[in-house]
Amino acid sequence: MTLTESGPSSTTSGSAGSSLDLGPAAALACRACGHRLALAAEFACPQCFGPLEVAYEFGRVTREQIERGPKSLWRYKDLLPVPSTVEAHPNMDPGFTRLVKADRLGAELGFRNLWVKDDTGNPTHSFKDRVVAVALAAARELGFRVLACPSTGNLANATAAAAARAGWDSVVLIPSSLERAKVIMTAVYETSLLAVDGTYDDVNRLATELAFEQEDWAFVNVNVRPYYAEGSKSLGYEIAEQLGWRIPAQTVVPVASGSQLTKIDKAYGELVSLGLVDGAEWRISGAQAAGCSPVSTAFAEGTDVVRPQKPDTIARSLAIGNPADGPYVLDAVRRTGGTVTDVTDDEVRDAMRLLARTEGIFAETAGGVTVANARKQLEAGTLDPDADTVLLITGDGLKTLDAIEGQVGPTATVPATSAAVREALGISS
Amino acid sequence: MTLTESGPSSTTSGSAGSSLDLGPAAALACRACGHRLALAAEFACPQCFGPLEVAYEFGRVTREQIERGPKSLWRYKDLLPVPSTVEAHPNMDPGFTRLVKADRLGAELGFRNLWVKDDTGNPTHSFKDRVVAVALAAARELGFRVLACPSTGNLANATAAAAARAGWDSVVLIPSSLERAKVIMTAVYETSLLAVDGTYDDVNRLATELAFEQEDWAFVNVNVRPYYAEGSKSLGYEIAEQLGWRIPAQTVVPVASGSQLTKIDKAYGELVSLGLVDGAEWRISGAQAAGCSPVSTAFAEGTDVVRPQKPDTIARSLAIGNPADGPYVLDAVRRTGGTVTDVTDDEVRDAMRLLARTEGIFAETAGGVTVANARKQLEAGTLDPDADTVLLITGDGLKTLDAIEGQVGPTATVPATSAAVREALGISS
Ligand SMILES: Cc1ncc(COP(=O)(O)O)c(C=O)c1O
Ligand SMILES: Cc1ncc(COP(=O)(O)O)c(C=O)c1O
Ligand SMILES: [Zn+2]
Ligand SMILES: [Zn+2]
Repeated sequence: MTLTESGPSSTTSGSAGSSLDLGPAAALACRACGHRLALAAEFACPQCFGPLEVAYEFGRVTREQIERGPKSLWRYKDLLPVPSTVEAHPNMDPGFTRLVKADRLGAELGFRNLWVKDDTGNPTHSFKDRVVAVALAAARELGFRVLACPSTGNLANATAAAAARAGWDSVVLIPSSLERAKVIMTAVYETSLLAVDGTYDDVNRLATELAFEQEDWAFVNVNVRPYYAEGSKSLGYEIAEQLGWRIPAQTVVPVASGSQLTKIDKAYGELVSLGLVDGAEWRISGAQAAGCSPVSTAFAEGTDVVRPQKPDTIARSLAIGNPADGPYVLDAVRRTGGTVTDVTDDEVRDAMRLLARTEGIFAETAGGVTVANARKQLEAGTLDPDADTVLLITGDGLKTLDAIEGQVGPTATVPATSAAVREALGISS
Repeated sequence: MTLTESGPSSTTSGSAGSSLDLGPAAALACRACGHRLALAAEFACPQCFGPLEVAYEFGRVTREQIERGPKSLWRYKDLLPVPSTVEAHPNMDPGFTRLVKADRLGAELGFRNLWVKDDTGNPTHSFKDRVVAVALAAARELGFRVLACPSTGNLANATAAAAARAGWDSVVLIPSSLERAKVIMTAVYETSLLAVDGTYDDVNRLATELAFEQEDWAFVNVNVRPYYAEGSKSLGYEIAEQLGWRIPAQTVVPVASGSQLTKIDKAYGELVSLGLVDGAEWRISGAQAAGCSPVSTAFAEGTDVVRPQKPDTIARSLAIGNPADGPYVLDAVRRTGGTVTDVTDDEVRDAMRLLARTEGIFAETAGGVTVANARKQLEAGTLDPDADTVLLITGDGLKTLDAIEGQVGPTATVPATSAAVREALGISS
């Protein structure tokens, strides 16, 4: 590997702010204390170490303007922290995936108005292409030329692919226990892929350390995390646009670090304040696996404190035991009248198969987590069967084959005769 | 499995033609002798046993009308053999995938104006979602309620998924040697999946037999093949629309049965005669693997006769030794000044990796076949390095992991310390 030697133009707050073009992004603001600072490659508040978030000054944005845009998340570029020229640089152009009316799944679960947001259609088949696309654009503007990340798998795929297409070097850190498909699909892009002995939380700590030491590496979800996270807003915009500029009453979102859930909520709020949708109420619910349920545990206990766990679940992409945005998930869910629940691995497998056989969508374990929790919340009466409901399917079944391999397979293996086929299918001739 | 008992309204030519709504489709016409018959579930000419093809009477179709349409292949429904109400029935809504400007790949190969049509973004991650969507729509109109196919894998995925979403039963026949990912991804949709001992060509013969015996089964690529095949036209329409209503000078297409290649050529011709593009010349080239090269062999020998082969290649999705549309591929390629070539499995692997590391696109072996043949044809002087060139990437790398598993992997496995990371990457601290 030849890692580019030149570092970012600035990694200290403020000094580069004036010359940056990050579109409508105006500043970084601390989510804990509200302190504002100039746009830079910063992620922790200099006052209180709280997480930083992008603050905006939006211009006039109309539905027509968005509808005329490209068939990718860049149709929302005027709402994201990216330069107005973002499409000019080679990137993966993810987003604008299918919103699928899911009547057959709805009938099985008991929802009368159900949709599935199918983000498996993204270039590397998960929603992570969205966040990486925004991180890459911001990182370029901030002067970086190396993309990096710690990952539970999907982010590894998305980061390595985006860097490859951009012609950037990349460094990807994964737990050494990761699924085979996610490992091969990262390595094929010829990134510097390091399998780290430890859990994702260990890998994440290591990345934070490296982000301080290797100042020229843009760790998408560490030192450029404020920009990265905003990419998930595109999911909220798309869902509303695809419903005819309407926010669904209920949205169920899988929770790992919790970033995605909070940003969908943020997107809905922006659509309302920009007048792009009619005044709307919405409820956001979170979905976790029982084997990694720090946020649902805190929710059930009625506390604000998310206690770290040591994950043990087949939903490895959600196996973050110490979720950075856990408290903000609790806040968004409680504010909107939602819940956070968790389900067993068996329920995850069943839900993956249910989604496949009713809607033809083969999701990874994380998708099973969403569907199974939606069922659970409906049964508990915390979701309304009649309200418009959207389930987030954020990753692809081809990446987690092991989870269901033992459960599905050919009906039979037969010789090449039609009599054998009929016999295997119990058809009389 | 409970296979629906009611059969199609008619499987004999002519009798159902008058009440069918298959949009602009007007008749079936024999490609060999020109004989015409009414629209029905027929695939062989009653006069000469030649293959039947859909003939159209197009109404007025404008660019604006298409551009206002949905972001799926249904934007071209006025050019396909489907009812005008096609979108009202649950289907996978495939198509309108990314056309990627591939400057980095182009620089490596020596093309100065290169694009990649990335059909891995389809719902089941191959172009087969397109043909199945059209087959399903036509089969419904023809009165079928069971979808079936013989498949080298991608078609199995697409058929089982589409049937699941439509609430139809399905029967899928595959060679028992198929890749694990393709097997699991078919079985998960709860189809009747039969692994058949034999090659794809054996499976295909078996399906033809069954299509006569089980009159209520719509074998997408057998008894409804004329409709199915037309789905590939959408690739040609999309490429031209995405280039700004311009037909690329050169298109390189992988060849298994040969259907896709002939339909892209047909689509280009229709766009010209409908006045949707400016008068254009184009060259279509075919790509095969050396281990299954019946069409490239016939091309090299200058003959019209495609002699069957017994396939042996890692490009299993292209492993059709007796290609139904082989002669028509030769015809289209020779007429447009193209060639058909083949490449070794090692060249296929190298090309898969090249595409991944330059453009961030992880294609299956078939994609490697396309890229490697494009390089070969350029080196042979049968493709022009300066002409606008589009490569068809029709399937997904996650389905053929075995092909490259031995070649790519983590750079290193390390303990969770930044010193270990730096050492593994050769960075001085
Ligand atoms: C498929 C999938 N869904 C959901 C998530 C959760 O995202 P977040 O960390 O934003 O909560 C992840 C995270 O890796 C993921 O891979
Ligand atoms: C990925 C992929 N590409 C290309 C083809 C070739 O299609 P055709 O049979 O139309 O030549 C196939 C056929 O199965 C395929 O699976
Ligand atoms: Zn603060
Ligand atoms: Zn004939």
